[in-house]
Amino acid sequence: MYRDRIRLPSLWNKVMSAAEAALLIEDGMTVGMSGFTRAGEAKAVPHALAERAKVTPLKISLMTGASLGNDLDKELTEAGVLARRMPFQVDSTLRKAINAGEVMFIDQHLSETVEQLRNGQLKLPDIAVIEAVAITEQGHIVPTTSVGNSASFAIFARQVIIEINLAHNPNLEGLHDIYIPTYRPTRTPIPLVKVDDRIGSPAIPIPPEKIAAIVITHQGDSPSTVAPPDSDTQAIADHLIDFFKQEVAAGRMTNKLGPLQAGIGNIANAVMCGLIDSPFEDLTMYSEVLQDSTFDLIDAGKLSFASGSSITLSGRRNADVFGNLEKYKDKLVLRPQEISNHPEVVRRLGIIGINTALEFDLYGNVNSTHICGTRMMNGIGGSGDFARNAHLAIFVTKSIAKGGAISSVVPMVSHVDHTEHDVDILVTEIGLADLRGLAPRERARVIIDNCVHPSYRQALNDYFDAACVLGGHTPHILRDALSWHLNLEETGRMLAV
Amino acid sequence: MYRDRIRLPSLWNKVMSAAEAALLIEDGMTVGMSGFTRAGEAKAVPHALAERAKVTPLKISLMTGASLGNDLDKELTEAGVLARRMPFQVDSTLRKAINAGEVMFIDQHLSETVEQLRNGQLKLPDIAVIEAVAITEQGHIVPTTSVGNSASFAIFARQVIIEINLAHNPNLEGLHDIYIPTYRPTRTPIPLVKVDDRIGSPAIPIPPEKIAAIVITHQGDSPSTVAPPDSDTQAIADHLIDFFKQEVAAGRMTNKLGPLQAGIGNIANAVMCGLIDSPFEDLTMYSEVLQDSTFDLIDAGKLSFASGSSITLSGRRNADVFGNLEKYKDKLVLRPQEISNHPEVVRRLGIIGINTALEFDLYGNVNSTHICGTRMMNGIGGSGDFARNAHLAIFVTKSIAKGGAISSVVPMVSHVDHTEHDVDILVTEIGLADLRGLAPRERARVIIDNCVHPSYRQALNDYFDAACVLGGHTPHILRDALSWHLNLEETGRMLAV
Repeated sequence: MYRDRIRLPSLWNKVMSAAEAALLIEDGMTVGMSGFTRAGEAKAVPHALAERAKVTPLKISLMTGASLGNDLDKELTEAGVLARRMPFQVDSTLRKAINAGEVMFIDQHLSETVEQLRNGQLKLPDIAVIEAVAITEQGHIVPTTSVGNSASFAIFARQVIIEINLAHNPNLEGLHDIYIPTYRPTRTPIPLVKVDDRIGSPAIPIPPEKIAAIVITHQGDSPSTVAPPDSDTQAIADHLIDFFKQEVAAGRMTNKLGPLQAGIGNIANAVMCGLIDSPFEDLTMYSEVLQDSTFDLIDAGKLSFASGSSITLSGRRNADVFGNLEKYKDKLVLRPQEISNHPEVVRRLGIIGINTALEFDLYGNVNSTHICGTRMMNGIGGSGDFARNAHLAIFVTKSIAKGGAISSVVPMVSHVDHTEHDVDILVTEIGLADLRGLAPRERARVIIDNCVHPSYRQALNDYFDAACVLGGHTPHILRDALSWHLNLEETGRMLAV
Repeated sequence: MYRDRIRLPSLWNKVMSAAEAALLIEDGMTVGMSGFTRAGEAKAVPHALAERAKVTPLKISLMTGASLGNDLDKELTEAGVLARRMPFQVDSTLRKAINAGEVMFIDQHLSETVEQLRNGQLKLPDIAVIEAVAITEQGHIVPTTSVGNSASFAIFARQVIIEINLAHNPNLEGLHDIYIPTYRPTRTPIPLVKVDDRIGSPAIPIPPEKIAAIVITHQGDSPSTVAPPDSDTQAIADHLIDFFKQEVAAGRMTNKLGPLQAGIGNIANAVMCGLIDSPFEDLTMYSEVLQDSTFDLIDAGKLSFASGSSITLSGRRNADVFGNLEKYKDKLVLRPQEISNHPEVVRRLGIIGINTALEFDLYGNVNSTHICGTRMMNGIGGSGDFARNAHLAIFVTKSIAKGGAISSVVPMVSHVDHTEHDVDILVTEIGLADLRGLAPRERARVIIDNCVHPSYRQALNDYFDAACVLGGHTPHILRDALSWHLNLEETGRMLAV
């Protein structure tokens, strides 16, 4: 029944169990696996590897596109398999191991991993494990719900294990556009000039003799965990849509806006949902992950085309979208994350990048990753790829967290992922700060006035006023700059009530 | 005698004194001036403007390419002319005014200023003042020793004042390559695929009727202030050249290396000089500023081609290079800084970017701009344009400053310009840390072991050990993280002796 999915008959004898295939992975190897934002990850082989490691310990370096679903990072962590992990994760068990210093985590811009592999700056994967809907007549790999880094992993690895997942709609074939930049010094421009351009091939081209094993699976992707908009995320969406209207009125954008990028998560999803009832038309996305809101916007006739590297849907939308893929297919493309996030393309297209901040400071520096400067949350993901080169680099967050114990706006961020040079617009449910063309002292004023929760406004005003007395282009009081974080660690609150 | 420099005779009647031309600049205007790293700045008109402001106060927003020479930023600051200044400066008087909050300074990636103008995100210049060697038969402007932002300023401004500087060799004509990206949504790839590609025109195309005034000048550029290599900068150069040899041996680069970018200043200049006696051949530069070392390398037969946005030379090399320009002209091109620093091109070409850090921390974050997190030094310049997208992002600094009172390696930088995600290699005179593919705790180990001055090594080890006990992906002790900077402010030393 799966032979129609393996269209090169000479590969039929490579079909084996996940446990057998996992034996190809040896202690000390570097392994590249498919998977991006819980979509299209290899499922059976990593599970079998974790099972095996419970009996016979082994350690690997694991590279993926981004986060895995189906609790695979948890399983692999608990089985002690992960020595090194890159470039992104979202699993709470793995996060604990990273913060304990037990797993070496390399937190990278998602566009850069395969570029560093290509240049020999990271160790190439010994083996790649890639989920596919089919293998073509040429032995090429047709990915499933994500492309991520799968193409380059398969090209760089000496051996490739393919998981043919029968749970995915075979009609996914044709959705992907695999383009790999040429090597230097003869690298040429990436010929992508419109969101819907197709510049590559529909499958990953590798010599079929590299395919060492094929495993048949039936397990679906994990559903996304996105929550419906609440009053705060709705307020953030409203502020941003008002801002877009002003940009259109000022002639800086048309009513089509620019190609939209939205990070994963509730706030970005809420902003995208907010566009359904907006006056904007003929919208496009050039993003990493396509979430429920992408398809809600298509259904509403608002979104003409969406380019991403993965599709991650809730239980609600999953069957509906993938069961009716022909309805959406001509409006979608999935690309390698190197291309979906490429600085060349992001700058050329003029992306509007909307990403979530953990916290930001008076001067517009953004922390996306580290709680109190030390403990990794998930990773920077693609936020830096987009923010640096976007037409508009927008960061969103609720103004407070933990019932008000934490202010998301602080005197000085405890870790910097996006510098003051790279941040244009900050939005909380309180309001929006437009930092473009402002000096640091001016930024502090608009941030305090527009984004800070009322319960922290006086304290931030006091800090800023006192710092200005000391002077400086970016006034700070070094003794107090991180005191809010220190209070949080010691008392559970940033400020005494 | 200057009429051969103004080849469109209808413009001859626009010649006037600098004082008359400066009257075109009105209070409250935004003014875009030529000038990049003390090369090719408009000289007479800003001087006349400062003189006028002493009598009749006025304020402007001043945009340039980068830094100005001939003490113009000092004069303009002292005359109270500068309300706002972007995107870079190096003047001590202006610096004081910035740090006092008297001049609003917008510290930008040098590739981004004209992109933000083009998109209407910054106020367009009302008037541009551009130094030129000639005006062509079409009324187009031939720049002098820098291109910087001059082309876009002239295109965007309603009126243009041209300073024809007779002190410059007219043979500079033909050196420049003016390419302006198209507007979105129809922007196309920048067609530059080799360092020596010419993709634009030799002069800045504007309608001649925009030329409102022409001023004749005779004043040279300020000489660069670069110092010859000392034992520390020589040691930094040696470490880096050893590293390049290892990269070649590992097959990650050829003996031609990649296109080199070097920031302005003594250390980068010393590194470039160090290449004269290296085994590398047929080198190229794709940089912002071409300094003495560029021409020393050409003379030594080591450097085949250099692309920059300006030429800034010492007194020693100035007459020699510009007096014998035909000797160098086929090995040089000057481009708009948007193109010399463009993320698309930097990533495509695989630049080796060498820039100076003010300080860096245990985890590889780099501060390029702020003393003790508050006081602006010069600005980020192009370092971020190159570091983010380079094949190798290298930062160099001496391990200590002020006779040992300051360590350039600190627990936590007091300001972040380049995040841990963007920094590959750190070098001091002590040694070199290769951070590629390392997790934060691993980076701390190689930085302490390789880059820290012996007098600070134990203290940093102690900090790191104690922070690791507390845990975290990026271990820190928040109470102590900025204590070295606080000590410096309060006692003049980072650590008690």
